[in-house]
Amino acid sequence: MKLFFEPKTVAQFGASSNAFRPGNHLAQNLKVSFGDDFYPINPKESYILDQKCYPSLREIPVPIDLAIVFIPAASVPGALEQCAEKGVKRVVIESAGFAEVGERGRELNRRCLEIAKKYGIRLWGPNCMGPINVTKMKVMSFMLPWIWEGRFIKGGVSLVVQSGMLSAGFLMHMLSRAPFGLSKVCSIGNKMDVDEVDLLEYFIQDPDTEVIAMYLESLSRGRRFYELAKSTQKPIVILKSGRTESGLKAAVSHTASIAQDDRVLDSAFRQARIIRVKGMHELLEVSRCLGVTRMKPVRKARIAVITFSGGAGVVTSDDIKDHGMELAEMAPETRKKIKQVFPEWMDPENPVDLYPAIEKFGPTGPVNTSLEAMMADPGVDAVYAHLFASPMNEQLFDFDFIAGLIKKYNKPLVVWMMGDAATENRIAGELENKGIPTATEIAKGVRMLAALTMRR
Amino acid sequence: MKLFFEPKTVAQFGASSNAFRPGNHLAQNLKVSFGDDFYPINPKESYILDQKCYPSLREIPVPIDLAIVFIPAASVPGALEQCAEKGVKRVVIESAGFAEVGERGRELNRRCLEIAKKYGIRLWGPNCMGPINVTKMKVMSFMLPWIWEGRFIKGGVSLVVQSGMLSAGFLMHMLSRAPFGLSKVCSIGNKMDVDEVDLLEYFIQDPDTEVIAMYLESLSRGRRFYELAKSTQKPIVILKSGRTESGLKAAVSHTASIAQDDRVLDSAFRQARIIRVKGMHELLEVSRCLGVTRMKPVRKARIAVITFSGGAGVVTSDDIKDHGMELAEMAPETRKKIKQVFPEWMDPENPVDLYPAIEKFGPTGPVNTSLEAMMADPGVDAVYAHLFASPMNEQLFDFDFIAGLIKKYNKPLVVWMMGDAATENRIAGELENKGIPTATEIAKGVRMLAALTMRR
Repeated sequence: MKLFFEPKTVAQFGASSNAFRPGNHLAQNLKVSFGDDFYPINPKESYILDQKCYPSLREIPVPIDLAIVFIPAASVPGALEQCAEKGVKRVVIESAGFAEVGERGRELNRRCLEIAKKYGIRLWGPNCMGPINVTKMKVMSFMLPWIWEGRFIKGGVSLVVQSGMLSAGFLMHMLSRAPFGLSKVCSIGNKMDVDEVDLLEYFIQDPDTEVIAMYLESLSRGRRFYELAKSTQKPIVILKSGRTESGLKAAVSHTASIAQDDRVLDSAFRQARIIRVKGMHELLEVSRCLGVTRMKPVRKARIAVITFSGGAGVVTSDDIKDHGMELAEMAPETRKKIKQVFPEWMDPENPVDLYPAIEKFGPTGPVNTSLEAMMADPGVDAVYAHLFASPMNEQLFDFDFIAGLIKKYNKPLVVWMMGDAATENRIAGELENKGIPTATEIAKGVRMLAALTMRR
Repeated sequence: MKLFFEPKTVAQFGASSNAFRPGNHLAQNLKVSFGDDFYPINPKESYILDQKCYPSLREIPVPIDLAIVFIPAASVPGALEQCAEKGVKRVVIESAGFAEVGERGRELNRRCLEIAKKYGIRLWGPNCMGPINVTKMKVMSFMLPWIWEGRFIKGGVSLVVQSGMLSAGFLMHMLSRAPFGLSKVCSIGNKMDVDEVDLLEYFIQDPDTEVIAMYLESLSRGRRFYELAKSTQKPIVILKSGRTESGLKAAVSHTASIAQDDRVLDSAFRQARIIRVKGMHELLEVSRCLGVTRMKPVRKARIAVITFSGGAGVVTSDDIKDHGMELAEMAPETRKKIKQVFPEWMDPENPVDLYPAIEKFGPTGPVNTSLEAMMADPGVDAVYAHLFASPMNEQLFDFDFIAGLIKKYNKPLVVWMMGDAATENRIAGELENKGIPTATEIAKGVRMLAALTMRR
């Protein structure tokens, strides 16, 4: 797999000089990523992005580590034959029009596999956007350059999606919001050859990958996947769609997926301690959270909740129970510390409703005092803090103090924010950079806590 | 209830001239809302916000329709006695420190109710932010003026929350995102007297209210609530927290709520065709959606999905099934129309994956053609359209054409968007104003469709 992520020389079939074509976006990304080690192929052009353009692969004067094929499906087998002839061992097929579109596509599929097998070529795709190595800033996808340039943040999450637009669209979505530290992003499409098992195996070994997140429409080689998943301490977060009859039908026409019994899968996931999520945002949020913070395993997670809204505290308590966690019992010492910032008529309970205290003292003191009291309490495994994101009180939160608590007490802290959208985004950026995951909805933060406290 | 929403003259106990105190924020809101008909009370001040300030209620030279009490709990009964003496019949108590804080608070509670009963006063609160009448722009809450000024949009949704910060915080949250058309916003707190039944009854009659949304920690007078809910065609969306043991415990200390069997409640909700949601965002999103669009009742909702991502189509199909809806079967005529914009190698299926078509023709043609084909199909009850929100293609969506389809075919259309955050917000604003609800996550749009197609 390594050669897919770290090739030295890359050739592109279907490079385009038309800035409106995806074949040009791919070329732009390859040029930025590989400089002069990028070799565009197009019989109708002499130069693309100042790189000499070759009529076919064989004219390229150097050995090629990786070929990216982005031409109509019918011409792909011909390109593969060129790869065989030149001794290229890794090929990414980003073109669509294969097994997902019926018999003719399936025939193309067979021919490609035949050639690959004969010449020892590993094939990635087709019907995908290919691999991205964020750690080394190598982008082998045709997504628009502005989506990622200057926006990728290196981190520990490696993401595998069996869908092209999802990887590009989602990246755009995430990168335009809170920071998301990524290692690799893989769009694997129909997975004619390279599949999630190959990638799982690779990411388990990969020192730059700490969290593995996958969107899958089908699971190939289930037994091997299960064994690999059981063998690692790295958290694996999976969204498996095609759960229902309707979903499955859609998956077949999307990536030529094959039916699987979802209940069997679900129980295997549970046994392998795979974190199964139901939506694409959940996939990203949970894996982002695990990329930012982690905790030591506990028997049953005891959560402290600090809020500015009694109502939010009640909703949070329900959600915590739903996820099999519990509200921490505060030690008498903790109550005493928090009581110092409470009005005379009110006694601290978990969830701690700070609103009256904030009304009296402003947010800084009550938030800091109650956070530290809860973090210090041996009966508390993790803290869920609710912050009111208003431009009026943004300056009043002491983020360094809060981040310091995490280090001091070695417990995770998850923050939910509500309030002004722009303020929320600013605070989220600041917190995530300091190792504090942030949620935009109460239930999402609880979901993160549930994933954090899952024993591996 | 009407006098709570449309008083002519309003007095405030606990008006403050200190701009950092909530008693001043309340005064600012009352001044903006009622002008010279606002009468601040504070024995230590002569003028507040250029309004003459009175040492007590009795010195105010005109009859008062509504008194708002925002002073320490222990002094509230005294204020109520002044109200009785002056003949004020409607009082909103925004102070906290009543039944939610134990025996002494409960005693205060009893005294207030005694006075109210004796003099025929209706009490709103305590422990709340009071009523807001968006239709008439009368804000009787102590939330910061900048949260709402210039941001409230008049519309059909009336919101009741049993929590102060939620109403203010949520409003800030929502108003800083997509437009949300509101009629009334009510924070009712401990509901010593005025409760959700009073408000439900009022909103069922209120011509400005089209959708009723409630956050409740307990349900008073369940039988009456049930009968009222069954009697109306207006959709009622409810988040009832305190579902679990932990949640209930938190609810007791928050608003002195009383235990209720959640399963009994759940089945009553179902029978009364109440739309029950689980999270606060869901409460707002579903009610906003119903405020923007509605559909005629159907037996089983048949949904057409138009997407730019095959993967998103698969996930959507699962979610649609989860909610008891189904994917529409396309008529041959519909397939034929959509095939016109599809590449030769691909046949239209529902979900319609437009990506290859968009790659070939750009978004405008494929989106418009497939949307119109689906809207025209008699086997389709509602359409779920996925749009890719990129600054590059923002200009390429023909929103007027899309809005025209809704009018022409009289079917609802829900849009999910993914992509660049700022672009998403711009497009969402545009769409919501044209009667098209927008979702930020696939499952949320499906939730909206499920609420839209629920038979009342």
